[in-house]
Amino acid sequence: MNNTKVILHDVGLRDGLQSISKIVDTDTKLKWLQKLIDANVRYIQVGSFVNPKVLPQMADTDEIFMRINNGEVRKNSDTILTALILNEKGMERAINSKVDKILMGVSASETHSLKNTKMSVDEATNRIIEIAKQCRAEGFEIQVSVQSAFGCGFEGKIETQKVLSIVEKYVQNGINNISLADTAGHANPLAVESMFKRILNLDSDVELACHFHNTYGMGMLNVLAAINSGVKFIESSFGGIGGCPFTKVPAGNVCTEDIVHYFNREVIPNGINLNQLIELSKDAANYLELELPGYVYKTGAINWN
Amino acid sequence: MNNTKVILHDVGLRDGLQSISKIVDTDTKLKWLQKLIDANVRYIQVGSFVNPKVLPQMADTDEIFMRINNGEVRKNSDTILTALILNEKGMERAINSKVDKILMGVSASETHSLKNTKMSVDEATNRIIEIAKQCRAEGFEIQVSVQSAFGCGFEGKIETQKVLSIVEKYVQNGINNISLADTAGHANPLAVESMFKRILNLDSDVELACHFHNTYGMGMLNVLAAINSGVKFIESSFGGIGGCPFTKVPAGNVCTEDIVHYFNREVIPNGINLNQLIELSKDAANYLELELPGYVYKTGAINWN
Repeated sequence: MNNTKVILHDVGLRDGLQSISKIVDTDTKLKWLQKLIDANVRYIQVGSFVNPKVLPQMADTDEIFMRINNGEVRKNSDTILTALILNEKGMERAINSKVDKILMGVSASETHSLKNTKMSVDEATNRIIEIAKQCRAEGFEIQVSVQSAFGCGFEGKIETQKVLSIVEKYVQNGINNISLADTAGHANPLAVESMFKRILNLDSDVELACHFHNTYGMGMLNVLAAINSGVKFIESSFGGIGGCPFTKVPAGNVCTEDIVHYFNREVIPNGINLNQLIELSKDAANYLELELPGYVYKTGAINWN
Repeated sequence: MNNTKVILHDVGLRDGLQSISKIVDTDTKLKWLQKLIDANVRYIQVGSFVNPKVLPQMADTDEIFMRINNGEVRKNSDTILTALILNEKGMERAINSKVDKILMGVSASETHSLKNTKMSVDEATNRIIEIAKQCRAEGFEIQVSVQSAFGCGFEGKIETQKVLSIVEKYVQNGINNISLADTAGHANPLAVESMFKRILNLDSDVELACHFHNTYGMGMLNVLAAINSGVKFIESSFGGIGGCPFTKVPAGNVCTEDIVHYFNREVIPNGINLNQLIELSKDAANYLELELPGYVYKTGAINWN
């Protein structure tokens, strides 16, 4: 482990809840958001500005930000609230909502790209770069992603060069906050290390993020590989909830409190209040009437040092 | 990953089934054993010679070996069938059953030792060493273990020195086939690396084995740390079934087919037929009417290279 400055970016309220058919009411989402902030999770993905007909679970994202901006949520001085957009319309809503950091991306899989955006990877990349530039011009922080970066549920192997060519385009356009998302859960540690190394060879100034699903039980191994490769942001979700509903074998995200617990056991400073996170996941499991994929919220933390 | 000669030792038929209240009939156990052999799992823990009143799930271990010895199971030339014993009576049964390798151990936790054996750690260690010597004198291969080696559900922290002093006694008595069992699931990668390094410093000829539970979601990380520390045998179970019924927070073992799948993704030779293992775990989940903790038997393997 060569890096203790890793930042967890919790995506449970977005990638987590969009995968669950039950729609969580807005008050509950705000309560969970407050718990994440109070537990000192610095980066929190609040929702996505997408078509409410396609993802009714995210229909209240504008309302949530309105209530945040009206002071209903107590942020810490270093809290960053993020949200995902897919297109120009989403961008307008995100800008109106005063999101701290706007997230957007493309898939490296032509099939996944067509299913999600009705565009080729090239077309989608050009469009997202334009949107990213507009967000910046409006004064917003951004992060761009490459989805299906380590394999695709539909296509199988995704050539590393395909991912690198998207990254290269981002970098050439001055965008170096880049997340690789393992949408299908196909990543393995060697692939993670190789990919991030090649990106840093391309441009050592890229600020790297990663997003792993634990589809095949390798989630934590991939997190460790990413940290060892110099990745700054780990996208994970409380309770491990989540999974893109538009991939072939959906499965949970790596679990925020399990990572925090692992950090604590390895004496890696992280500043997060584990017990509050555990309470949140217990609360969510009760509300959703589901057993969530995470481990530590069920067992409790190891209580000796 | 510095070692590709790791051998998986499947403990599902013993540590797995003893944790499940439903008693699996003998024919089914023999069928599952055959599937493990046919999948080229080389080391397979078949059962334990314990008091059937305490663990009725293991009551047919003598019968299983009798049927194995009668030729009902087709072994490969390198198949090693193992079984656990707790005391002299178990030893006699194991010897009569012509077990290929006899397993026995002590707990490093005084509380766990008293609960399991009504003896202190010292007393239990002396007794197990005598039993191990007798097994060897009868011509049997053996492996001794230290349970609760990385923490105890009752006591919490177990001093490394306590574990090392047991290991030292084993080695001083000429026994260098040693497994560390993380009974409570408390291990983390740094602790694993540190412990195995100190054992190899004590005696570089020790043939190391490990046994991890995935109680807190760190199972695969610990397996990786053990492999990187030079451990030869990984004890895991098909479907991830298992968990000592006499510890405080029981949870599944690391899962054999998930490890094989991980090895395959990392191109680590292992000779095991993953699809047959997946079929076994599906079969077991159906029979037991349980969702097992493993991942890959539910999702299927990633099917590209």
